[in-house]
Amino acid sequence: MITVALAKGALLKDSVARFAAAGLDFSAVLDKDNRQLMVPTPCGRARALLVRNGDVPTYVSYGQAQLGVVGFDVLKEHQLPVAQLVDLGFGGCRMAVAVQESSGYTRAADLPAHCRVASKFTQCAREYFDALDLPVELVHLNGSVELGPITGMSEAIVDLVATGRTLRENGLIAIEDLFHSTARLVGHPLSVRLDNGPLASIVDAIRAATPVGSFS
Amino acid sequence: MITVALAKGALLKDSVARFAAAGLDFSAVLDKDNRQLMVPTPCGRARALLVRNGDVPTYVSYGQAQLGVVGFDVLKEHQLPVAQLVDLGFGGCRMAVAVQESSGYTRAADLPAHCRVASKFTQCAREYFDALDLPVELVHLNGSVELGPITGMSEAIVDLVATGRTLRENGLIAIEDLFHSTARLVGHPLSVRLDNGPLASIVDAIRAATPVGSFS
Repeated sequence: MITVALAKGALLKDSVARFAAAGLDFSAVLDKDNRQLMVPTPCGRARALLVRNGDVPTYVSYGQAQLGVVGFDVLKEHQLPVAQLVDLGFGGCRMAVAVQESSGYTRAADLPAHCRVASKFTQCAREYFDALDLPVELVHLNGSVELGPITGMSEAIVDLVATGRTLRENGLIAIEDLFHSTARLVGHPLSVRLDNGPLASIVDAIRAATPVGSFS
Repeated sequence: MITVALAKGALLKDSVARFAAAGLDFSAVLDKDNRQLMVPTPCGRARALLVRNGDVPTYVSYGQAQLGVVGFDVLKEHQLPVAQLVDLGFGGCRMAVAVQESSGYTRAADLPAHCRVASKFTQCAREYFDALDLPVELVHLNGSVELGPITGMSEAIVDLVATGRTLRENGLIAIEDLFHSTARLVGHPLSVRLDNGPLASIVDAIRAATPVGSFS
């Protein structure tokens, strides 16, 4: 039985479509009335674990799921030992530094040393500001990071930006990008290495169903 | 202007009711169509910050909010410097160790040394197992912690239990409690100390509106 960790939320629909191309029907997880966290395919060959975005690398790195779909942003932040197999191309967004439009800052290096930066992605932010050699105090938030500058708690934020609407609605502007993120098919390294066919055929089918040009 | 950090979710309705007793009307945050994260009272004396549960101690400890309402579980987990002012009594639940009913474990000390324990509250779990002198490997999860034992990733979980329904639905059983949790009114230590009246009168009114017997 193959177990696949799928992230609830924005990536779910496209993830299910990509696995359908590999002959695995996880469409039951899209049913709004579904309350199950472990959902088998009708064929019985596989099952999906429906978990939080940030938990996909955990289930895959411990081998409780052989495959998983998760955003590159989460992989960067958690740094767990999983194999990146395919860049799926969907779920595109960028990790950006944003500030209040009225602040006058136009690039990250303009920020004053030792200022506060709020983020859900403090690991990514730490790496970025270390590389800039700019010491900042990171404030970890779990949500609504845009409140950091609005309340005056932080000078800037590091957050995912898709359409930019949330930033605009809050008077914020992105001034620099850390990286671009898309959904990735990941695997448990040992399972992938010891696989004698079934995992490889799923990975190959998903790779074949992924539009050219969206590979990393 | 007094700023109050309120946690979205289960505690919100009771929090609003308790502040109403102190003459502050935050009922606009309960409006389902509200998209604002910063909501002023009609009287203009105060405003609410609508934030995630885990972010309340952050806003209060940095002084961006002078007061906040948050579960004791979150305070225990994050250990940030906030002043606990009133045990509000509502939002009661317990932090418990749970295992699969079929496992045969009846207390935490039965768990095998070096087994895995999954939790959203790894700090609380670490303290508890350290006090038992039982070395365990903690696996941090962001949600659906009950999947830990179901998938075989962990032998046990440490999680909040209110009615016990989620545990039962997943074949799990609570075997030991770490502590009981209720909502707390917290304050920014310096703001509370330097207050010349307005904060104290709100705290006193909320304390008076809190049923006797639910103080910590």
